[in-house]
Amino acid sequence: MSEVKMLATRAREAATALAATSTVQRNRALLSMAHALLAKQDEILSANAADIEAARLKNTPAPLLDRLELNPARLKSIAEALKSLALLPDPIGEVTSGFRMPNGIWLQQIRVPMGVVAMIYEARPNVTADAAGLCIKTGNAVILRGGSMAMQSNIAMTKVLANAAAGSGMHPACIQSVESPDREAAEELMGLHGMIDVLIPRGGAGLIKSVVENAKVPVIETGVGNCHVYIHEKADAAMAERIVINAKCQRPGVCNAIESLLIDERIYERVLPPILKALEHEGVTIIGDEKTRSLGAVMRIQPASEEDWGTEYLDLKISCKVVNGLDEAIRHINAFGTKHSEAIITEDYETAKRFLNEVDAAAVYVNASTRFTDGGEFGLGAEIGISTQKLHARGPMGLTALTTTKFIAMGSGQIRE
Amino acid sequence: MSEVKMLATRAREAATALAATSTVQRNRALLSMAHALLAKQDEILSANAADIEAARLKNTPAPLLDRLELNPARLKSIAEALKSLALLPDPIGEVTSGFRMPNGIWLQQIRVPMGVVAMIYEARPNVTADAAGLCIKTGNAVILRGGSMAMQSNIAMTKVLANAAAGSGMHPACIQSVESPDREAAEELMGLHGMIDVLIPRGGAGLIKSVVENAKVPVIETGVGNCHVYIHEKADAAMAERIVINAKCQRPGVCNAIESLLIDERIYERVLPPILKALEHEGVTIIGDEKTRSLGAVMRIQPASEEDWGTEYLDLKISCKVVNGLDEAIRHINAFGTKHSEAIITEDYETAKRFLNEVDAAAVYVNASTRFTDGGEFGLGAEIGISTQKLHARGPMGLTALTTTKFIAMGSGQIRE
Repeated sequence: MSEVKMLATRAREAATALAATSTVQRNRALLSMAHALLAKQDEILSANAADIEAARLKNTPAPLLDRLELNPARLKSIAEALKSLALLPDPIGEVTSGFRMPNGIWLQQIRVPMGVVAMIYEARPNVTADAAGLCIKTGNAVILRGGSMAMQSNIAMTKVLANAAAGSGMHPACIQSVESPDREAAEELMGLHGMIDVLIPRGGAGLIKSVVENAKVPVIETGVGNCHVYIHEKADAAMAERIVINAKCQRPGVCNAIESLLIDERIYERVLPPILKALEHEGVTIIGDEKTRSLGAVMRIQPASEEDWGTEYLDLKISCKVVNGLDEAIRHINAFGTKHSEAIITEDYETAKRFLNEVDAAAVYVNASTRFTDGGEFGLGAEIGISTQKLHARGPMGLTALTTTKFIAMGSGQIRE
Repeated sequence: MSEVKMLATRAREAATALAATSTVQRNRALLSMAHALLAKQDEILSANAADIEAARLKNTPAPLLDRLELNPARLKSIAEALKSLALLPDPIGEVTSGFRMPNGIWLQQIRVPMGVVAMIYEARPNVTADAAGLCIKTGNAVILRGGSMAMQSNIAMTKVLANAAAGSGMHPACIQSVESPDREAAEELMGLHGMIDVLIPRGGAGLIKSVVENAKVPVIETGVGNCHVYIHEKADAAMAERIVINAKCQRPGVCNAIESLLIDERIYERVLPPILKALEHEGVTIIGDEKTRSLGAVMRIQPASEEDWGTEYLDLKISCKVVNGLDEAIRHINAFGTKHSEAIITEDYETAKRFLNEVDAAAVYVNASTRFTDGGEFGLGAEIGISTQKLHARGPMGLTALTTTKFIAMGSGQIRE
């Protein structure tokens, strides 16, 4: 049996055992995992040092090395996150609906763990503890497959976390990681239909695409965000500028930052130049359609290609297009957006209503920055990721996204006539 | 552009238009679709006659011909089903959660249509009207791909339904069918990631498997049911017999009928023989493990192979295994079941609790027949199918399974600090 299949077989046993644990037991395991991360930090940090050394030899760029690095302060904050998970309400066991059937059967629909969750992610070793914690909280067995660059760190952390969980009574296979760095191992994991209940990829567009193309198990797509702000003809121009600058510049590398600006042709000559200047002042590279470029408002506006409308720059870069009104704006967003977060700036009531209704995205805003799409801002407690698909979960996902439901029926001999 | 891609492109336009329709408009469309099915029945019945003639020439077995056949009475009952859909409450627009964010943004999570739904199904032409009705009710554009044997019937029905919907103001592409009978067309449909929001296969295990293997779009798996009754040592023997007979024999061809019987080794010598005799009396073929066969209770018990434990017979046939107690029963069910419907017969309180908790299935029963797993019995109104996956929907699916949610945020200039 291959490594991956063995892990999955053991994970299924662990899932059955986890289904029988109580909230108190699982919270205790989280606290003991947090404690172990600090108690065994030498082990983890020396594995991490080996990963960093290997990455350095491969001339890995500094920002990637930084994402890869663990240190006592970072481990402490990872441990704090596990502790705060223990304090969140337990979604498992909630009765979501139910009634007495006419024949006397007591029917309840209850929230239960998914079973076996798989996560495939890139080089951040903090995701290992984060994902393990979320899964233990929700009673799921988890199979982790981190980036090969962080392999030693992930193996060391998984060992520490799994031992701590086992020490407080969880099944020893509740947290496991794939130790083979081969691409084939990841692909085998994606193909284990019937053994993996859900696979969540966390990472860039390339990783998500590869999972969607190859997976035969159910997937929750996360995170890719080609988001827009549309400035309607009846917009407050100062508010539009403030929101565009915030949505583009406050943290350009995240999925809820905007990549594209749409503006009504009735106002662009007046409203757009100061916004472009403000963007230039923030160091943003501007890519524009012909009308935008004809304004000559800033030093250099590069011509936009069709491809630009569909590109998530994740950088100080924005594409800009003049549209002939609300209909074209909605059509453009629904055609090129990734259904993540979209905003309109308008003072017109009916326009606002139509935009909210007709734009197809996880979060749609009137007169506010797209940057608010976030589990914390939306009051969810923990966040597993931001789903850009429509099945199961959409937008920021809280703990319930790692659960499913089950009907339980208590009868006294009923048969169907 | 291929036929399938063209259909999907038009369906996306229709989905945007449908998102802007009201409950009243969609209900009116359903009534007009019901009316048109009867008004244009000659068209539909002559297309159906052509399908039947072609099937007959291919020596299609009688039960399949019967499934394929439409007649005035069947059309009337299909039309009645569309009318009763119009009377159900509309799930679209429901505010499922929401609050005022601390910064003053009004946040709501609302129920919205999926967008574009695709259905791939086998030779029953009634599914065409059924699926079209469910999708119009929930504001979704639908692309239908029925079995090639019913192709003419499906094309004719789709045309009648789409025209009727368009006549009452729906987008003309809200109901479309794939007219190419090629397997490639179905496979192309499964691959249209980003254009199809959900694909629901309805049919036998082979169809479901092919969809799971090939689809790159989100899928809801339905229907395959390898269901069990487990007779615990503390079972009421008369109740056990009544439930086993009902669950196996009342309608053996459906997914919530049982395929396998497990019984505790402490009681099988006493309890099993009368049950086997009753099954034999109903014409059920019995496949058994060694202990079952050693009873010699009935004329012929064929030896069970490992494969039998995983087989959905959908027929008057049952596999029977003696287990050494609750743990083995749960392990067997979780290993061989399809996570559909599972039942235990017991008078012991803690055993009942453990079975309900630890068996991993959409519906778990104590002392009742598995045959109750059904949208109607569970009070859901319309039923789209029975999901055997854990993502999005589990067990009988009502109208909400064809919906997703969207966050809408109404601000007054808020930016993220």
